[in-house]
Amino acid sequence: MTKRILTGDRPTGRLHLGHYVGTLSNRVALQSKYEMYISVVDLHSLTDRMDDPQKVKNIPDSVRELVLDYLAVGINPEKTTILLQSAIPEISELFAILMNLVTIARCERLPALKEKIRDQKIQHPSMGLLNYPILMASDILSLRAHLVPVGKDQESHIEFAREIAKTFNRLYKSRPGRDKVNDDEDAKKVFPEPEAIIGEAQTLPGTDGKAKMSKSLNNAIFLSDDERAVEEKVMSMYTDPKRTSASVPGTIEGNPLFIYHEIFNKNISEVEKFAERYRTGDVGDVEVKKALVKALNTFLNPIRFRRKNFEEQKGLIDKVLTEGTKKARVEIQNTLQIVKQSLGLPILSS
Amino acid sequence: MTKRILTGDRPTGRLHLGHYVGTLSNRVALQSKYEMYISVVDLHSLTDRMDDPQKVKNIPDSVRELVLDYLAVGINPEKTTILLQSAIPEISELFAILMNLVTIARCERLPALKEKIRDQKIQHPSMGLLNYPILMASDILSLRAHLVPVGKDQESHIEFAREIAKTFNRLYKSRPGRDKVNDDEDAKKVFPEPEAIIGEAQTLPGTDGKAKMSKSLNNAIFLSDDERAVEEKVMSMYTDPKRTSASVPGTIEGNPLFIYHEIFNKNISEVEKFAERYRTGDVGDVEVKKALVKALNTFLNPIRFRRKNFEEQKGLIDKVLTEGTKKARVEIQNTLQIVKQSLGLPILSS
Repeated sequence: MTKRILTGDRPTGRLHLGHYVGTLSNRVALQSKYEMYISVVDLHSLTDRMDDPQKVKNIPDSVRELVLDYLAVGINPEKTTILLQSAIPEISELFAILMNLVTIARCERLPALKEKIRDQKIQHPSMGLLNYPILMASDILSLRAHLVPVGKDQESHIEFAREIAKTFNRLYKSRPGRDKVNDDEDAKKVFPEPEAIIGEAQTLPGTDGKAKMSKSLNNAIFLSDDERAVEEKVMSMYTDPKRTSASVPGTIEGNPLFIYHEIFNKNISEVEKFAERYRTGDVGDVEVKKALVKALNTFLNPIRFRRKNFEEQKGLIDKVLTEGTKKARVEIQNTLQIVKQSLGLPILSS
Repeated sequence: MTKRILTGDRPTGRLHLGHYVGTLSNRVALQSKYEMYISVVDLHSLTDRMDDPQKVKNIPDSVRELVLDYLAVGINPEKTTILLQSAIPEISELFAILMNLVTIARCERLPALKEKIRDQKIQHPSMGLLNYPILMASDILSLRAHLVPVGKDQESHIEFAREIAKTFNRLYKSRPGRDKVNDDEDAKKVFPEPEAIIGEAQTLPGTDGKAKMSKSLNNAIFLSDDERAVEEKVMSMYTDPKRTSASVPGTIEGNPLFIYHEIFNKNISEVEKFAERYRTGDVGDVEVKKALVKALNTFLNPIRFRRKNFEEQKGLIDKVLTEGTKKARVEIQNTLQIVKQSLGLPILSS
């Protein structure tokens, strides 16, 4: 059986090179090996912005940009099902059931919650924040996903979903598996117990040299940036601050200029030569930057081309999302049916 | 415009005389004046028993008994819409949206939560318990109910739902109301702000003299008890403990024997005479009890008759619930559509 993968993003705007390196390239590779679902988790976006209608109003545009970015980098809707979380009420329905298997203490203990409250200086955290990991578990379990590719920082959330699945499976068995004489314990399990695929934590530094590229830090090169924007961002990007002139020997390690070159420049010998000359103070930043502009645009051009192409197909994004959501919803409704049967909740004749 | 009322019960078993006095008789009266909905809130039942599959398995039987009791006391499905909460995923959907408007602190502060944890000695309270009032608010707001008849102890929950409605209405306006030039502020409100109808807190003491009749205290006379069961319960019920013989003057006040007589015995002069003779030590408990048995059976007989009649109509309960749920779901789906439009969440072409 082909295993099922679920990944997802909160729709908060256009994707950038950091996303490409961190998740998108991996997803493109995985979609051919697994049954892949990507959920646009717009309900999760509400957890920290529902008191700000202006931000909420941006969600549909962000959803559109997000899906365009997916298609542009090569996520193929023939292989990957892209769904819109808020369009599937049954995810929330599972959430309202599973919350009863989690203690208040367990949710309060999750480090990600405390970190978020601290980092974003949230004065009055909402119940949405506290419930976040249960809703995420419902995303995963409603689709009966086996694998969830995440960064190291999200590993505890998958562990959390796994715990819920185990508890549910221990308390409640799938009915058909019990009614038949069936020795296969796995067949009686309502939920697969999801596992995290922890990436090699490829994070891309920002153009300002900060550890992580991020839209909110204003240090990102977007997949949808045009050639000029890329040139401007690269030409003014942070490099080795010790290099006051081209003749000062520079440091390659941790220098975003070279990190980008190593990832995006296909001309390996060019990169090696630049590195050598940079170390010995034999090349100016401008020359290395210009080469990076070229390399990045070479990398981004086919993505831009596809993006533009998809953008021009009127109704395409809506169609991709609608069809993906419809397909996912059938699966999720099926899960809810199994869940209710295993609990023994009343099921009305429809 | 006829105002809409929502009430509901957790399906935990058959209803008793205490329910009749406390809520059912009132509902029968209200159903002719208002647009009435009664929700069988089975998801709420999960909040304190999901770790006990045996208890969960009893839910469908309890749902059936509950609806039979409704019909038996005169709740008329032509006037009152009876719905099954768990069969409407959009209630949970609204819950997953509204939770973002409530702070963790606000939920933790609710006295009902602390009382429940203390009274039921709950060691590891679930997130379901903490979320309970938000789910209840979702029941009310998803149906856009104006009025909610509750006991004094539930008043804070309606206040809580009202707060959420106000916050939502302040932040987000109904779109059609804004797009048209419309001076009517009320028309722009997504949710009516629900009000509690606080009953005169008619609580019936148990047959053991305890303040409240309750299934779990084993001091209840059920609407579905047969004549023999009523006789047994009444003949062994608690009265004035000072009366060691018929000639000892007794106390009427707070004496369940007389409280029941006053409520259920239509023969007022008989009750007055018993009271007089009881006070002066001129009647035995047995005589007064036998008269109560007769009065209660006179009261219960038409209820039993209807109950039996409905019970014999195969598929009736399922039909009532299915139709009521279908009708309510249309309303609730409509609410969710309005909510999503007012938030500006993406709405897919279906």
